[in-house]
Amino acid sequence: MAYFDNNATTRPSAEVRAAFDQALRESWGNPSSPCRSGVEVRVRLDQARECIARSLEVDAGSVTFTSGSTEANNAVFAHAARFFEPSARALVSSIEHPSVLAPADHWFAERAQTVPVEPTGVIDLGHVSSLLDEVSGVRFVSLMAANNETGVLQPWREVADLCREREIHFHCDATQWIGKLPSCGFSACSSLSASAHKLGGPKGVGILVSDLPRPFILGGSQEGGRRSGTENYPAVKAMSVACEGMSSLLPEFPDRSCWRDSFETRMLVDFPGLQILGKEVPRLWNTSMLLMPDYENLRYVGKLDKLGFEVSTGSACSIGKDDASSVPLAMGFSPEQAKRLVRISSYAEQTESDWMSLATAFCDARDELDQDSSGSSVISP
Amino acid sequence: MAYFDNNATTRPSAEVRAAFDQALRESWGNPSSPCRSGVEVRVRLDQARECIARSLEVDAGSVTFTSGSTEANNAVFAHAARFFEPSARALVSSIEHPSVLAPADHWFAERAQTVPVEPTGVIDLGHVSSLLDEVSGVRFVSLMAANNETGVLQPWREVADLCREREIHFHCDATQWIGKLPSCGFSACSSLSASAHKLGGPKGVGILVSDLPRPFILGGSQEGGRRSGTENYPAVKAMSVACEGMSSLLPEFPDRSCWRDSFETRMLVDFPGLQILGKEVPRLWNTSMLLMPDYENLRYVGKLDKLGFEVSTGSACSIGKDDASSVPLAMGFSPEQAKRLVRISSYAEQTESDWMSLATAFCDARDELDQDSSGSSVISP
Repeated sequence: MAYFDNNATTRPSAEVRAAFDQALRESWGNPSSPCRSGVEVRVRLDQARECIARSLEVDAGSVTFTSGSTEANNAVFAHAARFFEPSARALVSSIEHPSVLAPADHWFAERAQTVPVEPTGVIDLGHVSSLLDEVSGVRFVSLMAANNETGVLQPWREVADLCREREIHFHCDATQWIGKLPSCGFSACSSLSASAHKLGGPKGVGILVSDLPRPFILGGSQEGGRRSGTENYPAVKAMSVACEGMSSLLPEFPDRSCWRDSFETRMLVDFPGLQILGKEVPRLWNTSMLLMPDYENLRYVGKLDKLGFEVSTGSACSIGKDDASSVPLAMGFSPEQAKRLVRISSYAEQTESDWMSLATAFCDARDELDQDSSGSSVISP
Repeated sequence: MAYFDNNATTRPSAEVRAAFDQALRESWGNPSSPCRSGVEVRVRLDQARECIARSLEVDAGSVTFTSGSTEANNAVFAHAARFFEPSARALVSSIEHPSVLAPADHWFAERAQTVPVEPTGVIDLGHVSSLLDEVSGVRFVSLMAANNETGVLQPWREVADLCREREIHFHCDATQWIGKLPSCGFSACSSLSASAHKLGGPKGVGILVSDLPRPFILGGSQEGGRRSGTENYPAVKAMSVACEGMSSLLPEFPDRSCWRDSFETRMLVDFPGLQILGKEVPRLWNTSMLLMPDYENLRYVGKLDKLGFEVSTGSACSIGKDDASSVPLAMGFSPEQAKRLVRISSYAEQTESDWMSLATAFCDARDELDQDSSGSSVISP
């Protein structure tokens, strides 16, 4: 199978698996134990923290390990809601991940305001700026670095600057950016979340980079009092190895956008009426969100599966739910159109040849769907 | 090294590591993805859930996977605080783990009442009963199954019955019980938490068994809407293998208390003035909490380390903090006495011979500490 659902999760490399297994074998002690196995793991945990912080160009002292980006996003909103005055307001973009939108709604309720995006999928920077000037009491702004569904890059550095000038906390969900594009500039964010399994690491581990002092998960005061629960060193070590592995590939990754672009050029020829979300603006080099002109997305997913290609219909988090993902709706597409969206996302393993084969497979899938339709029309005219 | 800090964490077995690695290699898909790798993992995730539920004798439909017991305990208090009326009161035992005590304080504040324990370390069942009758508005009670520091078993089944009769939610932190004693009876609890790494599984995964419908970590609505964040199938699978492995050993585990008892008998002879916490009441078969008559616990930990034995000073969560653990204080010991507590905790790997060697090592350690003291008195009389 050629796997094109890397924005949902990535395959752990052999090096990552080996590091995980070695840690499970040799470094399974509890970092909070006073005995030797605990002390050794405590040292290694902080070495891994240094390594990850270096690759993300952030301060190791502000890195808290979490169970993933979802927990990290929840934590920062819970922190903020308690840390700032009760009247503090939050701005969040309309295309944030559900793990940002839901905590924003939960912790800030009517004090959370959604900032719309342009039809391209990019947040309107001028609108953000005017909101920051006009809405009183804004203390918290959340904008993702790159959208998980369209891959559209957001002007997070500019929004970080706008917030810093106004002493407003700026949170950046960098889950889809980190591991795909260089991490420079993240130190300008007040807080930052990322997940290991989006960059070749294991599930169940991620980071929150933040100086907000309040914990979200309470108890044994691990992680300098910022996150309770026994530290998961084997997963952290595997994340660290994944970060190192990806760092070496980062320089060549952006050039791979030409593979995706060639794929899209062929698709636009072969599928009249096809739309590509965010095509006119900067996107992640690995992502293509297609609005198919004809059949529903799950029918394409099924046909492509039989042809040896794994693709998705959008955010893994929105699959199987009754509601369409909020991202295409925020970009002005209808719920009916959202049902025709197919998301393609590559990563380190997928080759130019895989992209070209995928374009061919799409044509084959469409032919089969046409045949199914004409066949079924004989049975039920 | 002979490892006697299993209440802090346990060594993952070769079978557990193999299962983890196989899942990282073959089942790394996102269970929420519509493509083949996702669907396959979704099926396997529910198979592992069934397997774990079966070994804990609970309903699979009420099992939510979390990052561990700490998150599970936090989640159930957050649920309860929102689910019950704002005036609802909570009772928690004074010897609960910090991951229960801290959320109780955070979510219920002055509406949380601590229930004292007897000097033996057992909660006073009559006191619980009278509190349930006398304190109005109690909707939530939390009592651990077995204490992490002393190993003392609590009358959780009786408290579960008292609560059920009164339609009060009963939460049981079963982290130290599960994997050491049979799980029968837990279906009588309204909710239950456990952690894989206390029973031979990996860190970073645990369960909350509960029918309370509110989520704690919000976002993509995984786990039937009860816990957001990409499901960590490899860790869940490893937990399931750990549960199966321990289930086969459960029948023989309680008989191993005689090894611990022989150790304690020798210690009481060799260390006049030694006290053993909870010795007069039912305890976990693996735990011995010693109040040493002489030197501070960290000095024993250091000497025993050099002699090849890893022991602890108490809950891993309380190490390195300024405050002594609340458990010995709740049992009536002084902060000075708490500094002389050494916790020994075995598990599947430790043999009768290991226990006997440990008793010898304690004598050797004491001799060295005596020598150090007499030596140092020469230097600084």
